[in-house]
Amino acid sequence: MSTAVSPLAPKKYPKMPAIEGVRMATAEAGIKYRDRTDLLAMVFDPGTSVAGVFTRSKCPSAPVDFCRQNLTAGKARVLIVNSGNANAFTGKKGRDSTAMTAEAAAKAAGCAAGDVFLASTGVIGEPLDAGKFSHLLKGLLAGAEPGGWTEAAKAIMTTDTYPKVATATVSLGGTDVTINGIAKGAGMIAPDMATMLSFVATDAPIAGPVLQDLLSRAVGKTFNAVTVDSDTSTSDTLLLFATGAASKRGAPRIEDAKDPQLGAFRRALGKILKQLALQVVRDGEGARKQIEVTVTGAKSARSAKRIALSIANSPLVKTAVAGEDANWGRVVMAVGKAGEPADRDRLSIWFGDNRLAHEGERDPAYSEEKTSAYMKRDEIRIVADIGIGRGKATVWTCDLTKEYVAINGDYRS
Amino acid sequence: MSTAVSPLAPKKYPKMPAIEGVRMATAEAGIKYRDRTDLLAMVFDPGTSVAGVFTRSKCPSAPVDFCRQNLTAGKARVLIVNSGNANAFTGKKGRDSTAMTAEAAAKAAGCAAGDVFLASTGVIGEPLDAGKFSHLLKGLLAGAEPGGWTEAAKAIMTTDTYPKVATATVSLGGTDVTINGIAKGAGMIAPDMATMLSFVATDAPIAGPVLQDLLSRAVGKTFNAVTVDSDTSTSDTLLLFATGAASKRGAPRIEDAKDPQLGAFRRALGKILKQLALQVVRDGEGARKQIEVTVTGAKSARSAKRIALSIANSPLVKTAVAGEDANWGRVVMAVGKAGEPADRDRLSIWFGDNRLAHEGERDPAYSEEKTSAYMKRDEIRIVADIGIGRGKATVWTCDLTKEYVAINGDYRS
Repeated sequence: MSTAVSPLAPKKYPKMPAIEGVRMATAEAGIKYRDRTDLLAMVFDPGTSVAGVFTRSKCPSAPVDFCRQNLTAGKARVLIVNSGNANAFTGKKGRDSTAMTAEAAAKAAGCAAGDVFLASTGVIGEPLDAGKFSHLLKGLLAGAEPGGWTEAAKAIMTTDTYPKVATATVSLGGTDVTINGIAKGAGMIAPDMATMLSFVATDAPIAGPVLQDLLSRAVGKTFNAVTVDSDTSTSDTLLLFATGAASKRGAPRIEDAKDPQLGAFRRALGKILKQLALQVVRDGEGARKQIEVTVTGAKSARSAKRIALSIANSPLVKTAVAGEDANWGRVVMAVGKAGEPADRDRLSIWFGDNRLAHEGERDPAYSEEKTSAYMKRDEIRIVADIGIGRGKATVWTCDLTKEYVAINGDYRS
Repeated sequence: MSTAVSPLAPKKYPKMPAIEGVRMATAEAGIKYRDRTDLLAMVFDPGTSVAGVFTRSKCPSAPVDFCRQNLTAGKARVLIVNSGNANAFTGKKGRDSTAMTAEAAAKAAGCAAGDVFLASTGVIGEPLDAGKFSHLLKGLLAGAEPGGWTEAAKAIMTTDTYPKVATATVSLGGTDVTINGIAKGAGMIAPDMATMLSFVATDAPIAGPVLQDLLSRAVGKTFNAVTVDSDTSTSDTLLLFATGAASKRGAPRIEDAKDPQLGAFRRALGKILKQLALQVVRDGEGARKQIEVTVTGAKSARSAKRIALSIANSPLVKTAVAGEDANWGRVVMAVGKAGEPADRDRLSIWFGDNRLAHEGERDPAYSEEKTSAYMKRDEIRIVADIGIGRGKATVWTCDLTKEYVAINGDYRS
């Protein structure tokens, strides 16, 4: 298994500011990995609201069940995340483990277990022994400090080859507020959502229901528009925390999702989620190239997204891109298999600016040489115009390389 | 690109008898390949009925369109198949090409163009120049002889590493009738159906509508229950020809699909289709292991099949099998992502006879050692019991290896 950093890793990382009202700490609990952090605690000031989006798997992990239940109250004081074990498909033991962790965290933070949020990532089916790390939580929380976001991103990595962070500062009613986010994920990445954990926090004073509305709307074109391998995890968790600390500096408290003051915040949140989602794709297991698939002219936006995902999930399209082969016939195949309305004789396909196919056949002006040169890039854009409507969607994926097979052929052992 | 024969290739091939009323010939037309046959002609005696099942792709190839149209009359005199070019997504040129081929074949055989059936397999999107081989058809048909089924299977291969044939002789109303079949396919294999061509012929006197009924019912548990890579071809074609020649030897003419005399024939047809479908899976690009996935206890048979395909198409399940890793957590994931009714806490999973998970958690009696030994076999059986109903289905696939990526990374170039 390769440990080399993905060639698509960011060339530089943003400096992550602290978020008022958030403190954090990481530790080496030795859950599975050696000589690296595998435990993250975030502590939120009282009054922090929370929103979440989770996997649609019918076999969700114990922490996902736990978070879903606590989310109904919309308040958060502590987040505990471990890597190395997903605590998924662990039955009653799994529920005991989340209860034990939450209880230890609540005691250490002086809050209710209902204010605790949990996430676990790693192998499925192995019981997670919370006894291994729950005794660490008191010290961990006591030592939590503002800042440390990049360290936090490192502690939640599994097969990731680089930590994923993003930040933005925008005006909310004339006062600057900051949004920070971290994510992990490299395989078992597919909507909806991915083996993907992402935690985003802001000092903006936004009520829970508004936060949930913002988050639910933002995922469609970000985390739910990326796929590495069409495999959907049991553990996908995206949580957004708002401490409200910026209200002391004059930021208005937002109680209505339609509040016009939210514009810049909404755009910044979408941008951060997209940045994190693309970092996940660019760290797709074995990835050497990022692929952006845009479908236009479909019957509806929903239909466009389905066709785009059919292309993005096709092993034959992904291996062709890995081989730098402009095999657009496989895009035709993937459009055809999507089961969505399409008319072969109106279909056009581009790789970058190179139109390869037009109205149901190879473009007469198609240049093999130009397209082959384009395929050598590390960001490939595929556009398919279905030619029957106005539906449009963009999704992102990565190529399928031998390295993906190598990584996943011996992950567990 | 590897040219080694799949380790899962049949150890021996059946001796293929001639089918009365069928003559055939192959040629080296040099359409794409050098030094191998790439053109197959089958000639059927007058009175031959035909049935067919095709790809459900919204972007079908020109030959698929052509066959669908001719199938309505239910009569066949000639089949022409080429490998090396799929004549798919070739627009008007593609239609011109099928028309030119059919005309030349009809002229050579002394029949109508409506009695001709065509299939093409290979690269998508390249115009197929029928002028390259239509002049060969007269000589080819003139030299057609009974027998030669294995040679026929070789002529239609693309990335296949071995020819695929099957035969059976059964009693129809007290008279022996024979069914022969050939198939090709190795990648872009998924229901419904596969980059798969299969041609089956019998001397049984069975009317066209009955033949179609038999074929349509037989594909669900055979060709439509195999998947190599979840990618569905534009060209999938399965044709069944019945010459009726056995009526001279006393076989009854079957005009009713419910005729009780059909029992043995129906079973033999199903067996041949399954044999051919499994040969396709066992020649899956880069395949080192056959995987049989059985889902029991689902809400319905349809639901069971969807869950089984979700497991069989999961890259993470397939790479785990390639790595001989009993990573049953990925089976949990694939059940969860199928979107079908399931209850995590009732789910049980077996690899062979080894029960790994039971009622939502790891089986306490699970033996890593025994299961690891099992994973070294070249035929792996995965069983998932959903525990909520009586729906059952079995599908077949192969593992996902680095060789698959290598084969598909540079197929076109």
